[in-house]
Amino acid sequence: MREEVMTGLGEECGVFGAYDIDGEDVASYIYYGLFALQHRGQESCGISVTNTFGEKDDVRFHKDLGLVNEVFNKDIINSLSGNLGVGHVRYSTAGGWGRENSQPFVIHYIKGILSMAHNGNLTNTSELKNELATTGAIFQTKTDSEVIAYLIARERLHTLSIEDAVKSAAKKLKGAFSLVVGSPSKLIGARDPLGFRPLCIGRKDNTFFLSSESAALDTIGAEFIRDVEPGEIVTIADGEIISDRFSERIETARCIFEYIYFARTDSFIDGVSVYKSRVEAGGILAKKFPVEADLVVGVPESGLASAVGYSQESGIPYGMAFYKNSYVGRTFIKPKQNERTSGVQVKLNVIRDVVKGKRVIMVDDSIVRGTTIRNIVKMLKDAGALEVHVRVSSPPFKFPCYYGTDVPSRENLVAVNNSLEEIRESINADSLGFLEIDDLPKLCPGLSFCDACFTGNHKGGIPKETEDFTCC
Amino acid sequence: MREEVMTGLGEECGVFGAYDIDGEDVASYIYYGLFALQHRGQESCGISVTNTFGEKDDVRFHKDLGLVNEVFNKDIINSLSGNLGVGHVRYSTAGGWGRENSQPFVIHYIKGILSMAHNGNLTNTSELKNELATTGAIFQTKTDSEVIAYLIARERLHTLSIEDAVKSAAKKLKGAFSLVVGSPSKLIGARDPLGFRPLCIGRKDNTFFLSSESAALDTIGAEFIRDVEPGEIVTIADGEIISDRFSERIETARCIFEYIYFARTDSFIDGVSVYKSRVEAGGILAKKFPVEADLVVGVPESGLASAVGYSQESGIPYGMAFYKNSYVGRTFIKPKQNERTSGVQVKLNVIRDVVKGKRVIMVDDSIVRGTTIRNIVKMLKDAGALEVHVRVSSPPFKFPCYYGTDVPSRENLVAVNNSLEEIRESINADSLGFLEIDDLPKLCPGLSFCDACFTGNHKGGIPKETEDFTCC
Amino acid sequence: MREEVMTGLGEECGVFGAYDIDGEDVASYIYYGLFALQHRGQESCGISVTNTFGEKDDVRFHKDLGLVNEVFNKDIINSLSGNLGVGHVRYSTAGGWGRENSQPFVIHYIKGILSMAHNGNLTNTSELKNELATTGAIFQTKTDSEVIAYLIARERLHTLSIEDAVKSAAKKLKGAFSLVVGSPSKLIGARDPLGFRPLCIGRKDNTFFLSSESAALDTIGAEFIRDVEPGEIVTIADGEIISDRFSERIETARCIFEYIYFARTDSFIDGVSVYKSRVEAGGILAKKFPVEADLVVGVPESGLASAVGYSQESGIPYGMAFYKNSYVGRTFIKPKQNERTSGVQVKLNVIRDVVKGKRVIMVDDSIVRGTTIRNIVKMLKDAGALEVHVRVSSPPFKFPCYYGTDVPSRENLVAVNNSLEEIRESINADSLGFLEIDDLPKLCPGLSFCDACFTGNHKGGIPKETEDFTCC
Amino acid sequence: MREEVMTGLGEECGVFGAYDIDGEDVASYIYYGLFALQHRGQESCGISVTNTFGEKDDVRFHKDLGLVNEVFNKDIINSLSGNLGVGHVRYSTAGGWGRENSQPFVIHYIKGILSMAHNGNLTNTSELKNELATTGAIFQTKTDSEVIAYLIARERLHTLSIEDAVKSAAKKLKGAFSLVVGSPSKLIGARDPLGFRPLCIGRKDNTFFLSSESAALDTIGAEFIRDVEPGEIVTIADGEIISDRFSERIETARCIFEYIYFARTDSFIDGVSVYKSRVEAGGILAKKFPVEADLVVGVPESGLASAVGYSQESGIPYGMAFYKNSYVGRTFIKPKQNERTSGVQVKLNVIRDVVKGKRVIMVDDSIVRGTTIRNIVKMLKDAGALEVHVRVSSPPFKFPCYYGTDVPSRENLVAVNNSLEEIRESINADSLGFLEIDDLPKLCPGLSFCDACFTGNHKGGIPKETEDFTCC
Repeated sequence: MREEVMTGLGEECGVFGAYDIDGEDVASYIYYGLFALQHRGQESCGISVTNTFGEKDDVRFHKDLGLVNEVFNKDIINSLSGNLGVGHVRYSTAGGWGRENSQPFVIHYIKGILSMAHNGNLTNTSELKNELATTGAIFQTKTDSEVIAYLIARERLHTLSIEDAVKSAAKKLKGAFSLVVGSPSKLIGARDPLGFRPLCIGRKDNTFFLSSESAALDTIGAEFIRDVEPGEIVTIADGEIISDRFSERIETARCIFEYIYFARTDSFIDGVSVYKSRVEAGGILAKKFPVEADLVVGVPESGLASAVGYSQESGIPYGMAFYKNSYVGRTFIKPKQNERTSGVQVKLNVIRDVVKGKRVIMVDDSIVRGTTIRNIVKMLKDAGALEVHVRVSSPPFKFPCYYGTDVPSRENLVAVNNSLEEIRESINADSLGFLEIDDLPKLCPGLSFCDACFTGNHKGGIPKETEDFTCC
Repeated sequence: MREEVMTGLGEECGVFGAYDIDGEDVASYIYYGLFALQHRGQESCGISVTNTFGEKDDVRFHKDLGLVNEVFNKDIINSLSGNLGVGHVRYSTAGGWGRENSQPFVIHYIKGILSMAHNGNLTNTSELKNELATTGAIFQTKTDSEVIAYLIARERLHTLSIEDAVKSAAKKLKGAFSLVVGSPSKLIGARDPLGFRPLCIGRKDNTFFLSSESAALDTIGAEFIRDVEPGEIVTIADGEIISDRFSERIETARCIFEYIYFARTDSFIDGVSVYKSRVEAGGILAKKFPVEADLVVGVPESGLASAVGYSQESGIPYGMAFYKNSYVGRTFIKPKQNERTSGVQVKLNVIRDVVKGKRVIMVDDSIVRGTTIRNIVKMLKDAGALEVHVRVSSPPFKFPCYYGTDVPSRENLVAVNNSLEEIRESINADSLGFLEIDDLPKLCPGLSFCDACFTGNHKGGIPKETEDFTCC
Repeated sequence: MREEVMTGLGEECGVFGAYDIDGEDVASYIYYGLFALQHRGQESCGISVTNTFGEKDDVRFHKDLGLVNEVFNKDIINSLSGNLGVGHVRYSTAGGWGRENSQPFVIHYIKGILSMAHNGNLTNTSELKNELATTGAIFQTKTDSEVIAYLIARERLHTLSIEDAVKSAAKKLKGAFSLVVGSPSKLIGARDPLGFRPLCIGRKDNTFFLSSESAALDTIGAEFIRDVEPGEIVTIADGEIISDRFSERIETARCIFEYIYFARTDSFIDGVSVYKSRVEAGGILAKKFPVEADLVVGVPESGLASAVGYSQESGIPYGMAFYKNSYVGRTFIKPKQNERTSGVQVKLNVIRDVVKGKRVIMVDDSIVRGTTIRNIVKMLKDAGALEVHVRVSSPPFKFPCYYGTDVPSRENLVAVNNSLEEIRESINADSLGFLEIDDLPKLCPGLSFCDACFTGNHKGGIPKETEDFTCC
Repeated sequence: MREEVMTGLGEECGVFGAYDIDGEDVASYIYYGLFALQHRGQESCGISVTNTFGEKDDVRFHKDLGLVNEVFNKDIINSLSGNLGVGHVRYSTAGGWGRENSQPFVIHYIKGILSMAHNGNLTNTSELKNELATTGAIFQTKTDSEVIAYLIARERLHTLSIEDAVKSAAKKLKGAFSLVVGSPSKLIGARDPLGFRPLCIGRKDNTFFLSSESAALDTIGAEFIRDVEPGEIVTIADGEIISDRFSERIETARCIFEYIYFARTDSFIDGVSVYKSRVEAGGILAKKFPVEADLVVGVPESGLASAVGYSQESGIPYGMAFYKNSYVGRTFIKPKQNERTSGVQVKLNVIRDVVKGKRVIMVDDSIVRGTTIRNIVKMLKDAGALEVHVRVSSPPFKFPCYYGTDVPSRENLVAVNNSLEEIRESINADSLGFLEIDDLPKLCPGLSFCDACFTGNHKGGIPKETEDFTCC
């Protein structure tokens, strides 16, 4: 259950870029693109545009705390004239730095204007910052992105083109990053060598796009061209897509949780359908944890596809057990403890008729703290379900992520200190089955991936110092 | 597809009432109740509370244009102290009168304060207003509700109690009304003799509730007691629910469209599960309009249950074909004509993998103008669906509604001037089947209902003058 | 010192009306007019317009809590198309009824639309409300204005024209009222028989105006025609100003405090210059309370003209002792007790060089609680003034006002329980002189006036019941 | 006439700093201080605070576009806990960079947090930026302040203390700067060697202050200690004020226009009373341009003191000719050309009685374009003034300012292309007299000053490149 309202997994960020080589404005494309990526970040958003036929210092941007819906209106979109632009949606960060951290990050540097949007989390931010600070750098945000911009600006001093500068800078970055960079006349995309976060290329007539997810291309009616490869840098200029690499091809570490939970069900990442991946997970759960039951239901939204998979594999009918209230948003006032109305109930209600007197298999994408799922199991039983068998389409969460996912601290992860049986008991399920680590490769056949949050195998390294910096 | 974003059927209003006999505040119950009823009206909302242990003039209220989310915050809810209250969500109305028309309607009259929330539409508003105006009444809103309040105030002059005044007033009203009235010490509910709009009673410990839909009771963890009967008035006072009638029991005319589209899937209305009603409709469509296909899909949200019904009856697998973007709200900037991005695409995307190469049966709740469904069929075909067979879980719209539903004018209803075949062709479906008028009784077994929008049989009468007044 | 920031006298309301007989829009005239009257009320404001060439139900309005500056913007003003309109600025009222009470009051009644703006306070509101309530009236605000609108609507039933209805209604009102009424084709002004509050007529080309003060006419470049007489009703229709009376000519009771404090220094009321009136008050103080000194200074803004008068009469030089910070507005955070920064200091600072080593005569318009003036005297002494002689251009406040001025309750009026000497001591002045009641006639030569707040002589009567209703 | 509403001289910025050595919060002191400095900048404002007993990275800040009134509320001020802080009010800048340019400028650098507020304008910004850019610096704003922060950060690398870093950085700056810098444990002030902009030190118990103007110290009840000297750097640490210099004592170039117009009448700058300076200017005008007249009036606010001076010198009585509407602020909708209502009229009205039939001498502080004064002369004549003799308490504007004043381009300065007689004629004055350049020394006896805007003698140098950077 993807819930800004609930206490679960923090999501990350989404990036988008557009370049119309005929000179038409791209702000409204970016606006709709960001809508399509809103699930990746609800804290802040922004759009920056430049006119490739204008001055090298030409730029207009607008960014603020809030949803795309709240930050932009017609007048603002109309004022953002320019045929090359960058957009960003952002999750997270505490404290008063919120607005400062919103992106795209827009700078003046020796070669004019540079706009940048970043998704991911570096693991060598502290080292890079310290290094920059010792030569006099000043930092106005708490983001990795500022560090990346600094590196690009420095590299640009002794490189011949902006793409070369991005390439050199990218070589110095460790961890996860999918970047979209807008220079006065080029739109550049880059993806870290391990490929943690997605990034793809699209096109519609003479407009080129970069997007975190393919679903955003569908939204604006653009054609999906291909994914940016891990370690690749693509430069869109003069109506062409030029590809280069800043890293050898190495074994990648795509975030497996993009397939399980982060990405939209209708996106394709590196050739793999997110939908299929989730259906597959459900199918595996059906094979490994069969149980006699009358109905398979999914917890909206991310549990639904896995429930379909479980149903197809098991032959047990699929049912629609929940009504989800889509009006409950960020600013929703959470019920006080003593009101005995759980936030989950306001967001989700059981369709009584569907589950009454039934043995129900309930599929959800993950268990983090265990609180939300306990409430949902209770709701099903209150509605008359005879049994509730919980199936989880990911392995138990046990480790922190340093690559852009905001996992609660270990003491809050229910799987760290509890056995499977203890968890089952605490959530009052009649049986409980998690996807196993060995099953994960089937979710993205042919791709190597990162499962550090389940295994502790941090392929992208661990930061030496953990400062109070934030992702993206 | 229930879409404030799209151009379809206007929804109506939702009412909610709460009375804690121990004196505890009820504003937050009403707040969560209104969240649960938000689908019934997104234009404005409000809460009014009084303290039954206070003065008869004691009242606090807050109402404004906007969603529950936008109109209320913690400070406002906390400031609304009082143990008896009334809430309202409202759809519709154009022009500068928006804010004035928001409810609850709060008045001072000879007996102190009266708060009122109304769902429905009267058919004798003009006559009543004229009658009142000729005795010097002044009107500050364009709502039916003001007229009802006037009548109550006048009846109160020669009746012994507020409930008798409501009763007398109710006898003069024609058309549709579900009322929640808060007096200084009583909470009163009344429902028109034909029972157009729903209204039910709930309880949680020592708090009593009135609500448009039972789902709102679930949301706050209250127990559903029973529906208010058509022609009944219930008075909650001194910890009791007292029932009375202001009308003979006559053949009712429940709005059939509540089952098809308006109400939440998880609500029960007059003993009938909305979910089951929709599943049944799907089943009927499967029997009447069978077709060889690979997949049944529903258009979110209201088409989903009928798709489940079609699938169960036909044995053709149910599939999840769409991703719905729940961040797209009222303030969304609609794409300009020439941008070739339809609003539908931003709101809904096809999960390509599900439909590619498949013959798809697509179930939606209704066709109004035909524009939205044409776009959705196109999206499915663009995503690779080989065939798209459209099944509609209601008969074709042909007539206006005078009882609280905002149907577009007849020239905009695609079924008025087009044959079934012409509609099929215009939406580019491979086949098309509507639920038939004869099927409607199966949707709410044992209940008599209103199907005027399909048949023109206006059981509640037709207004003599159609003024520029608005419902609720 | 006129200070919304300080705790002093509540101000009242301002009304404005405009009618362009050529059909040009008048909203922007009203907007500037309300700016000019903003000192009369800072709580809420509004504009209502109709098109005399349109339907009788044609109306557009916008009103809200806030300053003219805050409530209106370009888009709103442009949307208010219409050639006949009414505007209002409003002071006062506590509680949640704020927005509901904002004006103009716009109603539908038997003859179409009526807009009304009211300045003043009735003394028979309770009687009228009770009378109306016993025939079934409902009240949606706590204003006198709603009562007046009801009366007009009722009278209209058996009168031949709107002006006759206003006339009949006016006969039933007791207390203070200056009304501006907009009907579908007429602009009407009426002023109570005692003439408590001002109202005047202006013209610019083919646009006619009604305004609380003449200064608002200057602001829009209109010519002052004449004052509306006490007991007179003027109807602007068909390019003419038609005069009628609803009351015999009786001895009037113009609010003397309009001259002393409320009105703008640049206004003329009933032929008397407010500036001259204040200069005269200063002159009288000089004659009655002479003292050897080096400098006469006025407390901005309302004390300045009287200081000029004192200086002219005494020959002691006029000095500019204060810098007034005009950025300190309604939303200013008042200093906490322990911060030892008084709100007065933030608003007002002494120009040290002017008063250092000087014996200063300081003229202010009134003393209410005594707190503000104590702070100002202290500031002057801290800045080096050797002596501070306070002269007050009004007699001591001792009684409540029932005609539209919000005087603190008697226990808070410093003059009620303290002798002159005690007051002098408490404010630490070296001498203190108040204008005397006998001096008041010289402030408005030839006019009879009300001085009830000083004398307790309430010519307009005292309300039988003092309910929780608010003025205007 | 100081008018954000009018088209005249842009104002500059105001800075404020506070450090309570006992550890008490200083945000509310800064809040009131900024209120007192609001006349120096109305575009944006901000406060940054740190706790000297906390971490070196401890900082909280809030800044935004708007007046102090609009940007801050009680909750925000309360959230800004910290005993050392910096505040800023800012004038100016076009384009979308507004919010980014607001101050204080808060950075992380090698030694922790640094907050900075700046008033003035550098003349070597471009050179410094280019130099920084060639070593890879990135710029996120268009302000001088960012450049200064960079320099301080770089100098800090090879200096032993923050004050030494500021000192070294200050040596590289050319042009005008009054700086307030907050480090984790020190509050530092610095003023350019020519002393263009004011800066002074205050104290209240154990709280130390830095402020652009002494009037802000009065506002919070603090004692004025002394001015910061041109070329001086003061460090407040450990309860002491430590003084150092980064420049030889050279002939200073205080902005003479601070005395004439910018500063508050109640401030003292470098020992000279602004009030006295203005009175003196009036006196000189009386001697040089005597005329037979009945009355001397000043245009509010900055013309008033000079009018007092003219009156005292000439013996012609001082009069209060204008009512100034203090509610007309930034968001005021300017009248359209064809409305024949000038913005000046809405802001200012003549008190008819004062000037009618009189020969009037009108004193204003400056003439820039001539439009405003033309309107005011017309208003006086329309009100019946027989003659209007204009006296201007500054010489004619003829040259740009590079030190923090936003003078319109030369083609818009009425004095550039018109003789005195032509100006007089164009504003329809009966006679016209400007202060002469030779008179200026009398305005600030003993101080050497900058009069570049009148003489073109730019003692602070002229920028080599004029980029699109903004002051402060």
